[in-house]
Amino acid sequence: MAIPTVESTTSNLTANGIAASVSKTANTLLKELPIRNGTAKFMPDTITNGASKPISNGTPVTLPELDASLLTTTLTPNPRSVPAPGSPEEASQKVCTDHMIQARWTATSGWNAPSLQPYGPLSLMPTASVLHYATECFEGMKLYRGYDGKLRLFRPQLNCNRMLVSTNRIALPAFPPAELLKLIVKLCATDGPKWLPKDRPGSFLYIRPTMIASDSALGVQRPKEALLFVIMACFPPMDGSATPGGMKLLASRDDMIRAWPGGFGYAKVGANYGPSLVAQGEARAQGFDQILWLFGDHCSVTEAGASNFFVVWKTKEGKTQLVTAPLGERIILDGVTRRSVLELSRTRLEKRCGELAPIEVVERKFDMFEIEEAVREGRMIESFAAGTAFFIAPVGLINFRGKELKIPMSEGDAGAYTKVIKNWLKNIMWGKEQHEWGYVIEESE
Amino acid sequence: MAIPTVESTTSNLTANGIAASVSKTANTLLKELPIRNGTAKFMPDTITNGASKPISNGTPVTLPELDASLLTTTLTPNPRSVPAPGSPEEASQKVCTDHMIQARWTATSGWNAPSLQPYGPLSLMPTASVLHYATECFEGMKLYRGYDGKLRLFRPQLNCNRMLVSTNRIALPAFPPAELLKLIVKLCATDGPKWLPKDRPGSFLYIRPTMIASDSALGVQRPKEALLFVIMACFPPMDGSATPGGMKLLASRDDMIRAWPGGFGYAKVGANYGPSLVAQGEARAQGFDQILWLFGDHCSVTEAGASNFFVVWKTKEGKTQLVTAPLGERIILDGVTRRSVLELSRTRLEKRCGELAPIEVVERKFDMFEIEEAVREGRMIESFAAGTAFFIAPVGLINFRGKELKIPMSEGDAGAYTKVIKNWLKNIMWGKEQHEWGYVIEESE
Repeated sequence: MAIPTVESTTSNLTANGIAASVSKTANTLLKELPIRNGTAKFMPDTITNGASKPISNGTPVTLPELDASLLTTTLTPNPRSVPAPGSPEEASQKVCTDHMIQARWTATSGWNAPSLQPYGPLSLMPTASVLHYATECFEGMKLYRGYDGKLRLFRPQLNCNRMLVSTNRIALPAFPPAELLKLIVKLCATDGPKWLPKDRPGSFLYIRPTMIASDSALGVQRPKEALLFVIMACFPPMDGSATPGGMKLLASRDDMIRAWPGGFGYAKVGANYGPSLVAQGEARAQGFDQILWLFGDHCSVTEAGASNFFVVWKTKEGKTQLVTAPLGERIILDGVTRRSVLELSRTRLEKRCGELAPIEVVERKFDMFEIEEAVREGRMIESFAAGTAFFIAPVGLINFRGKELKIPMSEGDAGAYTKVIKNWLKNIMWGKEQHEWGYVIEESE
Repeated sequence: MAIPTVESTTSNLTANGIAASVSKTANTLLKELPIRNGTAKFMPDTITNGASKPISNGTPVTLPELDASLLTTTLTPNPRSVPAPGSPEEASQKVCTDHMIQARWTATSGWNAPSLQPYGPLSLMPTASVLHYATECFEGMKLYRGYDGKLRLFRPQLNCNRMLVSTNRIALPAFPPAELLKLIVKLCATDGPKWLPKDRPGSFLYIRPTMIASDSALGVQRPKEALLFVIMACFPPMDGSATPGGMKLLASRDDMIRAWPGGFGYAKVGANYGPSLVAQGEARAQGFDQILWLFGDHCSVTEAGASNFFVVWKTKEGKTQLVTAPLGERIILDGVTRRSVLELSRTRLEKRCGELAPIEVVERKFDMFEIEEAVREGRMIESFAAGTAFFIAPVGLINFRGKELKIPMSEGDAGAYTKVIKNWLKNIMWGKEQHEWGYVIEESE
């Protein structure tokens, strides 16, 4: 049994005073995260900005919003050295840059002034909510050093908006996404020039915005204190770790389900990850790279590992299609790479592109039996997983109930569509193609 | 997208060398946590003890187990004062006793020697697994100061065994449950005499054993470092905060579910709690005490808040039944209070007990439509929630899709069965009845 709470009856959710900021925030979200068929049904979370609450005499007061203009800066007196490319330090995923962003929130005082400060450990009481109740969420982004010498983010507004979707789902305070973006940009501008030197085009850092409930009251309740932090970690090059022959996926058993309608599979909350690690570990022990998560009696395909999953196949009618699962049931993540793949494919692949036959881009429920049939009938063309961290990872094999389904890779290390989509994205990320999705960071020097 | 991992191919799950300890641990578990119908299907987690791993030459090595006999003790130089009964400090759920237990584990060195040390903050790297991936689980227990002057735990072996079930589900290291119990007992013996003085019979402390992944590599992978800690918190008296007229429950909407088959609802992992807080907050804002969590198209009743849920009703055939949801689908917690209610009811209430008509004790799926019908036909006798923290909490009302179902409370503040069960449990916990479920802590002086 979890312990009860002595919580008062005030609640952010009932704050009349936040109506204005709710609608403002919701509008921003709707613009960037279009509502699709069926989404409305599974979008119960009130969008709040977390900065206002009612007081006991019935008059709502406005508490301070997260405000990047209040940022205080303390540079580290002990800058560390950047790990050499290919070094064990770089691969450890433990080395972060010199600085981090922190901002504290409390239910009574709203958001405190954020700080840019030396990277270092956090101090939490053993009773802190995040350590017991998984009151935590995060984002994954990358900072790219372009071939044109510039530092870039990739569609960072989408990550900041999604972070707000996640904080709302996990009962953490809301914030204006544009302010989070400003803080991320400040960290990138501070540490980017040193950690992604101009003589290493094609390199990147992994950015991890995170929010945790630091509330030290043990009751199971909406947290009254939270900490937002942003860190940047060194990372091994993704292409270097690509699996020869493509990723091998193990389709999940029906006794191990990642997400469920009415749950939180669409949000980037910690609760989606820890519970997947046992299945992931079993898959790796059997020589697979990731789990292909299925859902329901019909074995609908949802995600591959923590990435979105795509197939390119020919329909029985002879149409070439790029297919991925829809967002409607809210059991899969609205991935930024997923969305970008769909948008690029719709604008550039629905008509003939070089030697590639035109494709139809389809978001719909599809299942393992359809995949099995397409492979058996020679209609499967290729498959890949897409996400910020794994980027575009070709899939070479799916094990479904003990049966090995081999997925073609027409170009040897990937399918032809996979390869062209991946290259387009790379060109945008690293500035070979000037595109509105590239968000250039101004460097001071 | 979550980030990928550079994890090696070794894995606790494939360690051949742990077969012996697996079966030993499994046997212990099976004895205390009987397998029920349908449980096997949803029990995929390998029971490992986490202390052994294979090495690269193929010879398994045995790493140190959690071993309470290695405990080191450092008493606080700054003992704090015990909050006065009824004080705001006591009610804050933030005040812990003078000391805590800590034990560190790594994948390469197994369990380090545990320590009893002054209570204080934890230091975690911002990349720590627990802050991102909800790699965390906990237990809830109480230490009781009895009316016979003794300090007691209540069936603590069950909590220690369940903690192992939880660590296995969330990819944290295993341990011998008996060693955890010894550590808990040591903390109780150290802080119990001062924090639960003999002149306060009927008082208690809340005990929170917790395990978190402290691994500072950012990859989504089985953690390679973990921290076990045990703390004891002061708590407001439960009976004092009982809701007059009984708890008011709001039945969950079908767009917000707590747990699902193939998920982790049976484990005491953080991932079950954070995602419930939005619904809980909305319920409180509407004047309800807790959510009554339903599951599936038939609105099966599962848990109330984070407690197990019981009804006493008359069947259409005129039989009096105590009914609670079964454990088979593994979507509800195998609560220690739940189990104790069932066992006491089976031994003491299936035959006539004073003025109480004999009841039949039933674990089966039941749903809101049955409850609605029983209320409408005057067959509902009473209802309560049961858990360590809330203890036995009478239910007075259930709101189901806007309809208010009033639940009788024959004794004014509870139903007659609820009251007798609650008193039996209290008598065991506080030593008015000498019973094997009471686990006496030896005090040094």
